[in-house]
Formats: sequence, C-alpha cells, structure tokens
Amino acid sequence: MSDRNFRILFARTPSGLPVPEDFGRDEVAIPTPADGQFLSRTIWLSLDPYYRNVMKNSPIYGDRLAPGDPMVGETVAQVVQSRHAGFAVGDYVAVRNGWQQYAVSNGAGVRKLDATAAPLSTALGVLGMPGLTGYAGLVYLGEPKPGQTVVVSAATGPVGSTVGQVARLMGARSVGIAGSAAKCDYAVRELGYAACVNYRDGDLRAALKEACPEGIDVYFDNVGGDTLAAVFGNLALGARIVLCGMIEAYSMDRPPAGPFLGPVVGARATIKGLVVYDHMHRLPELQRVVGGWIRDGRFRWREDVADGLEQAPEAFCRLMRGQNFGKALVRVAPERA
Amino acid sequence: MSDRNFRILFARTPSGLPVPEDFGRDEVAIPTPADGQFLSRTIWLSLDPYYRNVMKNSPIYGDRLAPGDPMVGETVAQVVQSRHAGFAVGDYVAVRNGWQQYAVSNGAGVRKLDATAAPLSTALGVLGMPGLTGYAGLVYLGEPKPGQTVVVSAATGPVGSTVGQVARLMGARSVGIAGSAAKCDYAVRELGYAACVNYRDGDLRAALKEACPEGIDVYFDNVGGDTLAAVFGNLALGARIVLCGMIEAYSMDRPPAGPFLGPVVGARATIKGLVVYDHMHRLPELQRVVGGWIRDGRFRWREDVADGLEQAPEAFCRLMRGQNFGKALVRVAPERA
Repeated sequence: MSDRNFRILFARTPSGLPVPEDFGRDEVAIPTPADGQFLSRTIWLSLDPYYRNVMKNSPIYGDRLAPGDPMVGETVAQVVQSRHAGFAVGDYVAVRNGWQQYAVSNGAGVRKLDATAAPLSTALGVLGMPGLTGYAGLVYLGEPKPGQTVVVSAATGPVGSTVGQVARLMGARSVGIAGSAAKCDYAVRELGYAACVNYRDGDLRAALKEACPEGIDVYFDNVGGDTLAAVFGNLALGARIVLCGMIEAYSMDRPPAGPFLGPVVGARATIKGLVVYDHMHRLPELQRVVGGWIRDGRFRWREDVADGLEQAPEAFCRLMRGQNFGKALVRVAPERA
Repeated sequence: MSDRNFRILFARTPSGLPVPEDFGRDEVAIPTPADGQFLSRTIWLSLDPYYRNVMKNSPIYGDRLAPGDPMVGETVAQVVQSRHAGFAVGDYVAVRNGWQQYAVSNGAGVRKLDATAAPLSTALGVLGMPGLTGYAGLVYLGEPKPGQTVVVSAATGPVGSTVGQVARLMGARSVGIAGSAAKCDYAVRELGYAACVNYRDGDLRAALKEACPEGIDVYFDNVGGDTLAAVFGNLALGARIVLCGMIEAYSMDRPPAGPFLGPVVGARATIKGLVVYDHMHRLPELQRVVGGWIRDGRFRWREDVADGLEQAPEAFCRLMRGQNFGKALVRVAPERA
C-alpha cells in the first residue's frame, strides 16, 4: 500500500458534453480512520450518467461540489484499516468512495459484499443500483404482463439489459433501442431481445412500428427527447411509460422541450417517474431473483472497463457520448492486492 | 313546426383559430323518420372545443366531415315524431343531432332526460359529458385525498368547475387557473375554490407556488402547453396529473412540443390520459352524486348562451379564443314549443 491517495477532482461545470479538461487530479495523504470509521481501498469505480447532473453543481441534485473537491461516485472497495465494529480488514464493501484510491467511511449506507456469490463488479451494475433501477422500475411501475411488448432504450447498458431480460423472463416480449448495429446484434443474440432497433438508422417511429406491430405496452425510458416522441407514436391502449433517465438533458444547461403529450391521452397511457432510492428495500429481492438467474446462466451482462483511475475522465466522457458498450467501470486496483 | 330544417355546415378546415367563414348554412326539408326511428327538434346545442379537432377532418378523430356536411355535436332535443317503440312524442333526449334544427335517430346512444330532475341544459354540461369528464377523471384517475391540493385549468368551464367543486366536496383544497379576473373572482366566490390564478397575469409558475405552498398533489389539465410546464414546476411528491384536453393544440396543424418531463421523475409523479368514453358506465353515479349536490345547493355552474342556431359559428369561435364564461350553449329552440 502506497502512502499517497490519488484523486480525480471536479474542476468546472462542463459546457454541453463533458471533456477531460472538466476534471483535475491531485495526490494527498491517505486519510486515517477515526474511532467508528474504517479506511477502504477502491477496487471498482462505477461511471454513471447522473454524475453529469452533479457536475451542474445545482442544489437540486443533492451532492454539491466545489472546484477542487474529489468527484463523488459509487465504488466497490476492500477494508484496509478498521476502527468500526461492523467492518473488518479484508471485507469487501459497496461504498461511495468517489473517484479516489482511498477513503474513510462511518459505515452509513455501506453494503458488505459476498465475493463468492457473484463477481464484485456486479454490485455496481446488474446487482446494484442500475440493476435495481431496471428491476424495480419494470416490475413495480411498468407491470408487464405475459405476451405484452416491453421497449427499453439504452438497451445494452446495465439498466436496459436488466429491463430487457427481466421482461423476457416474466413472459413478455422485449424490444430494445440502442445506438449501433453491434449493440443491437448483442441485444438480440446475447440478451434475448425479440428485436432491437438502432436509433441512428433513421425513422425510429417507423422502425418501432415494425418491431412492435401490436403497439408498445410498456416503455422504460432512459433517454427522453426524440426517442420518447417516437414511442408516443406507437403506444398500445393502456400503455405504461416509466421515466427513468433523461440522459440527453443532463448535458444541457436548460431543459429541452418534451414530446407532445396528446398521444398519451388517446392511448389512456400512464407515465410514471422512477427514482431508485424509493426502492432500496427491494435490493435483497433483486439479488435473490436476478442473482438466481445469473447463477442459472439465464441472465447476462457486459462491462466496459477502463484500467486505472487516471482513465476515468476520458471513460466518463465516452459514456456521455454513448460510446460505451456495457456497464462503464474503472478498475482502480486489482481485486486482490 | 316549420317544414324546413336550418343547418350549419362544415365548410373548410380552419387555419389556426376558427373563424365564422369556416362554416356554411343551408335549409333542407325536415327528414321523415323510418320505421325504428324518431324525429326530434333540437333545443340546446353544446359547443365543445373538441369540434375543432373534428374539423381537422383527420381519421384519428372519429367523425369525418366533407365540406357541406352538417356539423356534428351533442344536443338536447324533444321527440316530435316517433316510429320507435322506446321513444314517444314529447320525450326529452340527449342525442347527437349536430348543428341543425331537426334530425332523425335510431335511438343508439340516446339518453332520455327527466326535465323535472335538473334543468335540461345540464345534460350537456355538469350532468353530461363535460361533468362526467371532470368527475370521473378527478375521482378515478386523480384520486385526491382530503387536505391535498387539486389544481385545474379552465377552472370555470363545465369540466373545470366540476373538478374544482368535486375536489372541495371530497375534502381537498381546490385551486383554479382561469383567463380573467372576473373568472377568478367567480371561481372563488361562487365555486368555492380556495384560490384562483389568472394565467394572463404574468409568471404562472410563481403564482402557483404562492397559491400552492405545499405543492400540487393533483393537476387536472384541460389545456396543455405552457400551463402544464408551470404546474410541473410545482409538483408535490407523488403527484397525479390527469391529461384531459389540449385545447391549445386543437387549433394547430402540427402538434406543439410538450413540457420537459424531468420534474415528473423528481416528483415520482404519475401522468394519466383520460378519455371520457371509458367512463360512460359512471354517468348514473355522476347524476346521483353531483345531481344530489345540485339539489342541496352545494354545487353551481354557469352557462354562456348564444340565442339562435345562426349564432353558433361565432359562439364557437369565441369559445376557441377562450372568451366564453361558463358552459357554451346555443339555444336552438325554446324548451316548450
């Protein structure tokens, strides 16, 4: 263990899509845990689009960052010193260490991980917050019925791939929307989507009509904008639309207009806003249900790993440009030191 | 009874807001009922914003009109000849005679009216489709709880005044949005709204924040557009938004953009599309519940009456400009000939 703590810092609010120059870096002394705290070494850093909202530095997004603060973020880490009765050296934890090699924690909001039950990195993906977002949002807000058509955007990401596979395993027909032929091919061949539409291929509304001839019963929206408008043109009667993310809007200073809501009236549709923190009590259910499917080999996922914390800014910028393929992660340190 | 049938005709699809020149007129022979039909004389013609959509002459709005066809519409009429076993001369009926003095019907979709239970014209307003729209939409989609804040736009119209008064009589706090100081004054003094905001007075979002300090729990939307965006800025957690009408859009050739949906996510809100025809089985409930409140003097309404069918085009254009005050009706003939 080195005696320095390398960190990636928030430098400035991006203008539009983030660029690496929006971040800084430094090296400070490794902090020392006080009584009731533990020190952990970061192994995996999760990259998530909502960080772009945090970088707006607006009070409505919870975390506030001043220039020079380390970036916040979810991590998997291993306890290396402990003065906390509940955590022992060697324990693996899901903890918000942020974009740095080491951090102390008082244990609030920290989950211990069983490294033998599933790969550690899944705690940041399909068995963590993104998986819970997709699972709880689909099951409890989308409420798909067997035989119905479920459409999800960002279909190969950690949220979307959970939605698509859970929908299929609940007896529904899942249709993905993704941004490349390679992603669509993976969605159908590996994730079991009945069809996948490449939104860069032209008329999305017409392509969805072809892929969903009986209309869309459930739409799980990760992107907003024009994609949502194309879905509105293909709603089945009584459709449910789960609004989860507005990735397009995260990189805008002012919110864009939304789609015309007239078709929602005609379809007697219901639109529901999803915030994953309301569903934290369902994390054990996710781990039991989806964890079981993973052990049975019926549920797959894909990771897009950048090696080394110094790569995090560029990897995050790629994520925000939609150039990642799978759950975006940074390997900050090897799993076993 | 004259032997001629004066009619107002559809002449052309309006460009933007309708003008009287979009209508024609003629006089034809009064039709003769065949076996199984009755002939009725129109007393009241209802003017409703959705007619503007019918005038788009697009297949998605159901009725299709060719230039020269009589305008369609809801009426109260009295049977003057009958070859139908279920209807006798003198019966009052709610029937879709359209914009004409006489029409024949086979009885499908026709309701008989009890002229002693409530004024006949209420069958086109608070005890008819507009009242059912407001009542069923509020009670079964909006689901207000006692003490919650219910906001409704077009607050003094037949739908809005039903929503506002039913909300109050369910123990909620109702706040109206209307387009003049006189309408707002009437909303508070006569209809029992806790507050009413004039949307022509400037910053609607700020005015709603003042009128709804704890946020908006239920919004019943009759207009869409900027009003909806202002409401999105004031949602309480778990808000329900009932989308009923998009009056602004009815006079547009292409649908306008909608409001940014981000605040719906943050508020964990639910948006539901309302189509009144799904709630026809609740018409007896409306008449029992709201009819009871009318007889008790606890429920009020207002009518904006144009005298004579020849006035209908101009009265409809005033309605679409928001210049009516109360349920827009045309008195086509006296109630008792």
